[in-house]
Amino acid sequence: MIIVADNIRITNPEVEQALNDLDPAPIQALTKQCEAAGAEAIDINSGPLGQDPEKKMTFLVESIQAITRLPVLIDTTHPKAIESGLRAGRKPVMINGFSLEPARLQSILPLAVKYDADIIGYLLYPNGHVPSDGAGRLDVALKLYAEVQKAGLKDDQLIIDPIVAPLMWEDGRFQAMEILSVIRTLPDLLGFPVKTISGLSNLGAGNVEVRKKQLMEQAYAAMLSEAGLSMILMDVFHEGTMGIVSACNALKGSRIFSWEEV
Amino acid sequence: MIIVADNIRITNPEVEQALNDLDPAPIQALTKQCEAAGAEAIDINSGPLGQDPEKKMTFLVESIQAITRLPVLIDTTHPKAIESGLRAGRKPVMINGFSLEPARLQSILPLAVKYDADIIGYLLYPNGHVPSDGAGRLDVALKLYAEVQKAGLKDDQLIIDPIVAPLMWEDGRFQAMEILSVIRTLPDLLGFPVKTISGLSNLGAGNVEVRKKQLMEQAYAAMLSEAGLSMILMDVFHEGTMGIVSACNALKGSRIFSWEEV
Repeated sequence: MIIVADNIRITNPEVEQALNDLDPAPIQALTKQCEAAGAEAIDINSGPLGQDPEKKMTFLVESIQAITRLPVLIDTTHPKAIESGLRAGRKPVMINGFSLEPARLQSILPLAVKYDADIIGYLLYPNGHVPSDGAGRLDVALKLYAEVQKAGLKDDQLIIDPIVAPLMWEDGRFQAMEILSVIRTLPDLLGFPVKTISGLSNLGAGNVEVRKKQLMEQAYAAMLSEAGLSMILMDVFHEGTMGIVSACNALKGSRIFSWEEV
Repeated sequence: MIIVADNIRITNPEVEQALNDLDPAPIQALTKQCEAAGAEAIDINSGPLGQDPEKKMTFLVESIQAITRLPVLIDTTHPKAIESGLRAGRKPVMINGFSLEPARLQSILPLAVKYDADIIGYLLYPNGHVPSDGAGRLDVALKLYAEVQKAGLKDDQLIIDPIVAPLMWEDGRFQAMEILSVIRTLPDLLGFPVKTISGLSNLGAGNVEVRKKQLMEQAYAAMLSEAGLSMILMDVFHEGTMGIVSACNALKGSRIFSWEEV
């Protein structure tokens, strides 16, 4: 699994302040810490961006790319901000993401074609709701793929996010298990080696004891790896979880194994 | 997964000494520690037992059952010692185990029938060698199951051990992945919900840094859980691994989830 840091996010007050001040230093320091912790890509979760969205996204992408060669993911619902990020950015820049929600489908998916970018597709209904089981997610995946083909995107530009639900939901555990089966089934269903991504932090969303949250993250990360997940979006400062993810990658590797890999 | 402690083993000098002295105290203290650490069953790995094997196994089973209600597994290759353990023991006592090796097949499998005990079947060739891939293991599983049926055992008395290979083997990582697919395939192959067990400590066998060994154990334990493993034989004093196994069990549970379970 490719490790994508979810640490650059607007809900972090330091990031919010830096963005308001257009001060690259805190963003760059955080990015360097992510890279040092083992991040292999950086998700830029800017939120809806309020005023001057294009300027702000350009600032974020340029600030980060000035100090790292890691791929970045532009994670906002604002189409104009996505486009300015794609225009500002050195490749690879990925779009995170679109769904069957009409506004996103019409305004975000075409950007992937225009800028030849990879794009994450969420398994959500057109009304933005999370499907209630694996079958619902697979049905959405078929519709999403039909849209991707219609738009003229190549198969390997699509990365599917089955949307991890919080365990605190009444059926959160059931959803977590259904997602594993969705990840396992997608390549057969769509007929090519479908790339997938999951946001691990969603699992423990809510007011949960940190130790418990991280144990569940660790167990679930290994299960996602076993199911064949391609990219894992996570807090790269969770050391224990990073250790498990590295161990998973060492276990799933194709080359001759060496304990040096762990 | 049911957690089976592999800590009562003859390779532990304290256990060896207690067995030579027929002194129950150290064995009982260790058993209590295993139970406190979260063990749900106790494997009694006595080795070949040298002199007085029957007396020694009786001593071990009686010493342990005097202070715990946990199920025990009799883990020796010595048929007479197994029988004396089965005779001495209060149920449930399981036999660990037999294989297609002619001596074990002829002398150990019938004991499961005679004492109505569950028995672990190893996926090994009749010459004792480990199959080189998943297909080889499934072939052995079919032959093992045929023997179990011929002997008159009930399906749910069989617990299959696909034999985890050390990662230090040249193809250890390949073997580890094949085993996951074997565990996943067995119920379809044999046509009933096949119980399975894996010995986690085998994975890191050899001169391996403890931190790395435990990380790989943790990642692999979660993968085994995802694949549907029923019982995990492990060092219950590895706290991190126990945490992950509990988290896996909480994730795979069928009841309404609560963070209290973790």
